[in-house]
Amino acid sequence: MKGKAVVGQSGGPTAVINSSLVGVVQEALRHSEIEAVYGAINGIKGVLEEEFVDLGQEPAEVLEGLRRTPGAALGSIRYKVKEGDYERILQVFKAHNIRYFFYIGGNDSMDTAMKLDSLAKETGYELRVIGIPKTIDNDLAYTDHCPGYGSAARFVAMAVRDSGWDTRAMRVNSPVKIVEIMGRNAGWLAGAAALAKEQEDDPPHLIYVPERPLSKDKLLGDVEEAYRRYGYVVIALSEGVVNERGEPFGGEFAPKEVDAFGHVLKGGASDAAASIIKAELGLSTRIDKPNYLYRSFSLAVSEVDREEAYEVGKAAVIVALAGETGKMVTLIREPGPVYRSTTGLVELEKVANVERYLPDDFINEEGNFVTEAFIEYARPLIGGALAPYARLRGIRVPKKLL
Amino acid sequence: MKGKAVVGQSGGPTAVINSSLVGVVQEALRHSEIEAVYGAINGIKGVLEEEFVDLGQEPAEVLEGLRRTPGAALGSIRYKVKEGDYERILQVFKAHNIRYFFYIGGNDSMDTAMKLDSLAKETGYELRVIGIPKTIDNDLAYTDHCPGYGSAARFVAMAVRDSGWDTRAMRVNSPVKIVEIMGRNAGWLAGAAALAKEQEDDPPHLIYVPERPLSKDKLLGDVEEAYRRYGYVVIALSEGVVNERGEPFGGEFAPKEVDAFGHVLKGGASDAAASIIKAELGLSTRIDKPNYLYRSFSLAVSEVDREEAYEVGKAAVIVALAGETGKMVTLIREPGPVYRSTTGLVELEKVANVERYLPDDFINEEGNFVTEAFIEYARPLIGGALAPYARLRGIRVPKKLL
Repeated sequence: MKGKAVVGQSGGPTAVINSSLVGVVQEALRHSEIEAVYGAINGIKGVLEEEFVDLGQEPAEVLEGLRRTPGAALGSIRYKVKEGDYERILQVFKAHNIRYFFYIGGNDSMDTAMKLDSLAKETGYELRVIGIPKTIDNDLAYTDHCPGYGSAARFVAMAVRDSGWDTRAMRVNSPVKIVEIMGRNAGWLAGAAALAKEQEDDPPHLIYVPERPLSKDKLLGDVEEAYRRYGYVVIALSEGVVNERGEPFGGEFAPKEVDAFGHVLKGGASDAAASIIKAELGLSTRIDKPNYLYRSFSLAVSEVDREEAYEVGKAAVIVALAGETGKMVTLIREPGPVYRSTTGLVELEKVANVERYLPDDFINEEGNFVTEAFIEYARPLIGGALAPYARLRGIRVPKKLL
Repeated sequence: MKGKAVVGQSGGPTAVINSSLVGVVQEALRHSEIEAVYGAINGIKGVLEEEFVDLGQEPAEVLEGLRRTPGAALGSIRYKVKEGDYERILQVFKAHNIRYFFYIGGNDSMDTAMKLDSLAKETGYELRVIGIPKTIDNDLAYTDHCPGYGSAARFVAMAVRDSGWDTRAMRVNSPVKIVEIMGRNAGWLAGAAALAKEQEDDPPHLIYVPERPLSKDKLLGDVEEAYRRYGYVVIALSEGVVNERGEPFGGEFAPKEVDAFGHVLKGGASDAAASIIKAELGLSTRIDKPNYLYRSFSLAVSEVDREEAYEVGKAAVIVALAGETGKMVTLIREPGPVYRSTTGLVELEKVANVERYLPDDFINEEGNFVTEAFIEYARPLIGGALAPYARLRGIRVPKKLL
């Protein structure tokens, strides 16, 4: 089908979201059926406001360079599309003869894409809508994993390892470290901290994910036990961890933040946990909150992730040209000893607004670490082992004094 | 002078503190006058408790590997040495015939080294004490810069750039980002955020350092102006920024943290700033606190820094063998268009407990950024330019609808 294509980026960026964009653009430019490739400025907002850039006019070296550039080059947005918006979108598409819509995003964005696809079908406007998965949260269903996750997971592993080794060195003064990890509802990213560990006593010692409620007593018991065993404790704590009642962890005893007007703000899980550990165990506790670095720190990008992000963008164009619509591209892990993935397709209605959580066999019985099965799942996604670190043999000198 | 050597690591680790350790060990092992090289476990605490490891027994590949390993391999400590401790240290040194003491640390540690040197002289125990500079804060006097700073500065530049580009992409939803940067009293590290900027509108837009008081009105005026100009605002905020009265910024209107027992904890500068910006300007503000990653994230190490850290360790041994004592090794920037450094020496009494702040000509008049002079100072220390990022040309498509 002859017509123009629009590609948009939606939701929080990842370190490789631009790689998917380039996959779409470079593939689309190879096909004469696609008469132009427009980029929507700030996702669906750009479509609604008819704010497009002509990506076919970008120099080849800009496109190549974008594969190694974090942030969302087109600008992104979180925007809940309202009912009348879909009619407006189709109106804009018709005005420009846009027949292909590629939307790079998470489960909210897949909902937008699905509804747009439905309306186009209902109103008889021929449009091919393909979703391209993107989320560091790795919580899209029907795909082995999501582009963006591998790079964020690599950064998590590096950050927890390096900050953890720092804590090991400073254990006399401050024996506990909490690294707060992004992930409101799913523990995929926090779990990746386990990839920092080479030996049993290496950090991290505890990983808490939103899928398992965490009580104050459980936390204190775990920390005390790990401290007794290792002499220091490094915790990877998902920001979305909840207590036994399903409320944000520490909601009732967290440091309460009061803003300039006296409003009580929500204390974060790591602040709450640190406060408890200090108060009850007397252990000095430090916190890292790298926050937006998880989704942007480009030096730590997983090459596997970067390549897969490109491939899902490319695949979206190919399947759209083959007549598919209302689908999201997925990643399929091929069987075999060497990691390899291919792309597949799933109906948008199956992934829209659906969150995928860590399965039970990826979380240990104690609910304070991930299993070997998870580690096997996640390891190939971070794109190669972390650089090896040296450990002193540390041959002790016999004491001469009492 | 024949005798054994002890090397210790003190204070917060840096990503290259082990490189200095290896510089000491590898150089010391070349000289038969040094009969053994012991490492003190956890700095001066290990000396006091006679806890040593024999570094001469470490395999060569372990030592080489340590040059690329963060944390302090011997363990480190913050410990205020008490009066009687110095006698005990000399007693331990005598028992093992330790005649060389190399202490890798900051200005507190140089005080320890100085006092030990004095007591040895007073009591007639022949001992060579050489301090080896180490601090990400870059606040030691009489040295062009401090090993550890360049790597932390490189991480700062990368973190602010990547998180800043993320904010640029998400500006519609959350236009303000604060990256909190380590540095209690000096703005050397926060200033390095400027190295993230290639073009005038690039992040960061504002840098606040402890050397310049920051008022609430000043902050709000600056943010409003930057937002008007760029459409988003990225702020590198030193954790040690103070208000007009010299108190921690936001002390009076920060989010107050109340711990489990109702104690009010100090709100951090970035929490305070974010609270004010949200409340007064209505701009959604996000915060990154990478904290301990500044001093440990080894992937971002500056190769210049790693090499210099090694060289100061090596130089310490050479000057001690030449008869020097009571000195700290310094780094001297050689004149000329290509960056090059050599090592020098300064009396410990000149650097002990002395903090070096950003000079006036490194801070702009408005007190909200660093100057070109600072950038010229800092740029070579981070060990090469950051990887280039691509920017869309963004040729607009003419609108067809109203």
